[in-house]
Amino acid sequence: MLPTTRRQRTLTRDLRPADPVTLEGFVHRRRRLSAVTFLIIRDRAGLAQAVITKDREQTDELGEETVVRLTGPAVANPQAPGGVELVDPVIEVLGRPAGPPPVELWRPELNVGLPTLLDHAALTWRHPSRQRIWRLAAAAVHGFRSALDDQGFTEIATPKLVAGATESGANTFAVDYFGRPGFLAQSPQFYKQIMVGVFERVYEVGPVFRAEPHDTVRHLAQYTSLDAELGFVRDHHDVIMVLRDVIARMVQSVTPVADGFELPAVPDRFPVLHFADALRLVGAPEDEPDLAPEHERRLGEWARAEHGSDFLVVEGYPAVKRPFYTHPQPDDPRWTNSFDLIFRGTELVTGGQRLHRAEDYRAALAARGEDEEPYREYLATFGYGMPPHGGFAIGLERFVARLTGAANIRESTLFPRDLHRLTP
Amino acid sequence: MLPTTRRQRTLTRDLRPADPVTLEGFVHRRRRLSAVTFLIIRDRAGLAQAVITKDREQTDELGEETVVRLTGPAVANPQAPGGVELVDPVIEVLGRPAGPPPVELWRPELNVGLPTLLDHAALTWRHPSRQRIWRLAAAAVHGFRSALDDQGFTEIATPKLVAGATESGANTFAVDYFGRPGFLAQSPQFYKQIMVGVFERVYEVGPVFRAEPHDTVRHLAQYTSLDAELGFVRDHHDVIMVLRDVIARMVQSVTPVADGFELPAVPDRFPVLHFADALRLVGAPEDEPDLAPEHERRLGEWARAEHGSDFLVVEGYPAVKRPFYTHPQPDDPRWTNSFDLIFRGTELVTGGQRLHRAEDYRAALAARGEDEEPYREYLATFGYGMPPHGGFAIGLERFVARLTGAANIRESTLFPRDLHRLTP
Repeated sequence: MLPTTRRQRTLTRDLRPADPVTLEGFVHRRRRLSAVTFLIIRDRAGLAQAVITKDREQTDELGEETVVRLTGPAVANPQAPGGVELVDPVIEVLGRPAGPPPVELWRPELNVGLPTLLDHAALTWRHPSRQRIWRLAAAAVHGFRSALDDQGFTEIATPKLVAGATESGANTFAVDYFGRPGFLAQSPQFYKQIMVGVFERVYEVGPVFRAEPHDTVRHLAQYTSLDAELGFVRDHHDVIMVLRDVIARMVQSVTPVADGFELPAVPDRFPVLHFADALRLVGAPEDEPDLAPEHERRLGEWARAEHGSDFLVVEGYPAVKRPFYTHPQPDDPRWTNSFDLIFRGTELVTGGQRLHRAEDYRAALAARGEDEEPYREYLATFGYGMPPHGGFAIGLERFVARLTGAANIRESTLFPRDLHRLTP
Repeated sequence: MLPTTRRQRTLTRDLRPADPVTLEGFVHRRRRLSAVTFLIIRDRAGLAQAVITKDREQTDELGEETVVRLTGPAVANPQAPGGVELVDPVIEVLGRPAGPPPVELWRPELNVGLPTLLDHAALTWRHPSRQRIWRLAAAAVHGFRSALDDQGFTEIATPKLVAGATESGANTFAVDYFGRPGFLAQSPQFYKQIMVGVFERVYEVGPVFRAEPHDTVRHLAQYTSLDAELGFVRDHHDVIMVLRDVIARMVQSVTPVADGFELPAVPDRFPVLHFADALRLVGAPEDEPDLAPEHERRLGEWARAEHGSDFLVVEGYPAVKRPFYTHPQPDDPRWTNSFDLIFRGTELVTGGQRLHRAEDYRAALAARGEDEEPYREYLATFGYGMPPHGGFAIGLERFVARLTGAANIRESTLFPRDLHRLTP
C-alpha cells in the first residue's frame, strides 16, 4: 500500500502568517540588494515573496526559473506582494535550469516579437501575461460545455481520419492510411448531424484541420472547434437562441479570470440583420455574395451604435456561398437559413439550419454538379429519417483572440500550426 | 429581432396527464392491432406511447424511424409505458425515412454481427442498447474533467500535427504537411509535460493516432485519450493518488446512466504491487520484461481475492519496456517509477513519474543510442527548469468497453478506425 505521510504545500494565494509554511514553485525573480536578497516565487496560483538575510551565498545558484521548495516562517509584511512573505526559509532545489532563459520572464511585459514568442512557446507561456490568455481559453471551453450539458446535449468524439473531404477537396491534409488515401477532418459537420439522429443534441470540442495555403492573422492549420448541433428546431432561429445562451455562459465562465480584459455584455437576444439588409447598410452592391472584412467591421460599429451590442447575427447568406447541406430560406431560395455571428466587427461563429430530407440532399448535390458517391454514408442517415436540425461552430482561438485583443490568432494558440510552422 | 413565440415540447420522461401535450421524436415502433394502432415514440429522454383509434389510415405512412410531432391529450393509463399515453393526437410528419431501416431498432436486442453494427453505425447507435453505451462514455469524460478541475488542473489543447514521432518511429501516420513530411501525434505526452512548466497541472481530452498494423479487439487507429500530468510530485505515488480520485469520479459520474452495467467499487487507495512481485505471483520468469494478457488476468483475480478490488496498480515496470522519459526507481534503476492500472484483469491506464532534469534526458537518450536532435524543442523545456512531475493516460473507449463488458473496443467507439476501416 502507499505511504500515508504527505508533506503539506501551501499555494502562494493561500499564504498567511504561520510557521512553518512550505511554498513550491519557480524562482520568478531574484533581486540581490545590499543587505537582503528577495526571491519572487511563481506557482500555479500566482506570486509570493521570500526574503533571505542569512547565508545569502546560497542564492547564488538560484537563478530565474530554478524550481524550489521553501520552508520557513510566513510573516506579515505590508510591503510584500500579498502582505505576507517567507523569512529565511530552508531552500531545496527541485529543478535547475541550464542557464538564464533566453527570454526574461520576470519583466512585467514580454517585449518579444511574434517569432520569438512562438519559437520559445514552452518558455513564453510561463509568463503571467501569457498564462492569463490560455486560462481564459480553458474557462471559455468550460462555459461552452456547461451551457450545453444543462440543455440536454451529449458530448461526442468523432473521427479525425476520414475517407473524403467534408465540404470540398480544397484545404484538406492527405494522410497515408495504411497505404490507402485518407484525409484529416476539416470539421465534425457530417458526424454531428448523424449523431442528431441518435441523441438529438450533441456537441464536440476537438481539433479540426485546414491546409490553409495563405498566411493570415486569423487562420491556422489546426484549431479547436466548439461544435454543436441540435434537432427538432423550427429553423435557424432556434439555433441562434442556443448559441446566445452558450456565448453568455462562455463570457460568464471567463469573467473570474478575465483580469484586465474587457468582456462584452451579452444581450438577452442577439440583434439579427438579414444579409440583404446588411449589404444595403454598408452600401455594397446587392449582388455581392459575401461580406468583406471591412463590411463586417462596419456592421460591428452599426450594432454597437444601434443596439448597444458587441454581437450581431447576420442571417440569410446567399446559397452560392454556403455548403450544399445548408437549408434554403423557405420564402426565397436565393437566401439560406444560415447565419454568422459577428463579434466586435469580426465573424466569430458560422451556423445555420441544415437540410434534413434525403431528396433535398440529392437535389442540392445535383444542382452543384456533385456526385453522390463520396457522401454515401452521410446521405444514408437522411434516408433513415431525420428531424429538422441545425448547429454552429465557434473557433476557440479566434474567440480568445477577440476577447483579449490579440492582433494575431497565433497569440491565443498554445502551439500554432500554419503554412510555415510545424514546431514546437 | 427574433420572434418571441415558441411552441412547447414535452420530453417523454416528463409526460404527465395534461391537454394538449406535444411530443416530438422518432416512431420507434408502430403496432397495428385490430382496433387500435400504437405508436411508440423515441426521443432523447426515452420512450412514450400514443394510441390511435381514429383515422387509423393516417398511420399507414408512419413506418419506424419516421420523425413526428404529436399533439393531443396525455391520459393516465397504467398499461402504458410510464403510465401515461397520448390519445388520438394530431400527427405531423417532420422527417420521413426512405424505407424500412436495414436494422430493426424496435427489437429489444440488436441481434446483428459486428460488421453490420459498424457499417450502419449512423443507424445502430439509435438503438437504446447502443445509446446507453455512449451516454456512459460521455458521463465518464465529464467525471474525468470535473475531478481534475476541482484539483486545480488547467485544460490544454495540443497539436495533433507534429514534426516527429512521440516515442518511436513505429505506428505513426504520415501526413503531407504543405509538401513537407508531418505526422499525427501518437499522444500529447511531450506537450503535457511542457505545459507542466506553465500551469503545473494540466489535462487534455482528445484524439490520438496509432497506425496499429494488427487487427485486435483492443486497439484502434484513433482513440480518445484522457491525459493528465502534474508537477511537484514526490514520485509516482502522488500520481496514483490523483488517478484514484479521477477514476472514482468517473465511476460516480456514470452511475446515473449505468442502467444495468455492473460498476466497480473504487477503493480509497488502489492496492499496489511491484512488477517483480507480480511476476513471482503469476509464476513467470523473473527476467520477463512485461506482463502478458494472461498475467494481467490472473493479477486481476488476485486483487479481487486478496483486496476485494477490481483495481490493481502494478508499479516498477522494467526500464527496457518503458519510454526514455520514464523516471528510474531511485534505489534500483533496473526498475522505473512507472505503473499500469489493471482493471478487471486488463491494463486500463499507463502512467508514471518522468525525468525532469535536462542531463537525465541526455543520458537516457545516449543510453538508447538515440539522437537528441528530433527532441530538441522538448529537451529545451528541461533546460528552462522543471519540477519533478508525472502523469497518466486513460483510454476512454477501453474504459467504457470494460465497464460495459464489450468484447471488442469497436463496440464502445462511435465510428471506429482500424487497419481495414476508414468509414463510415
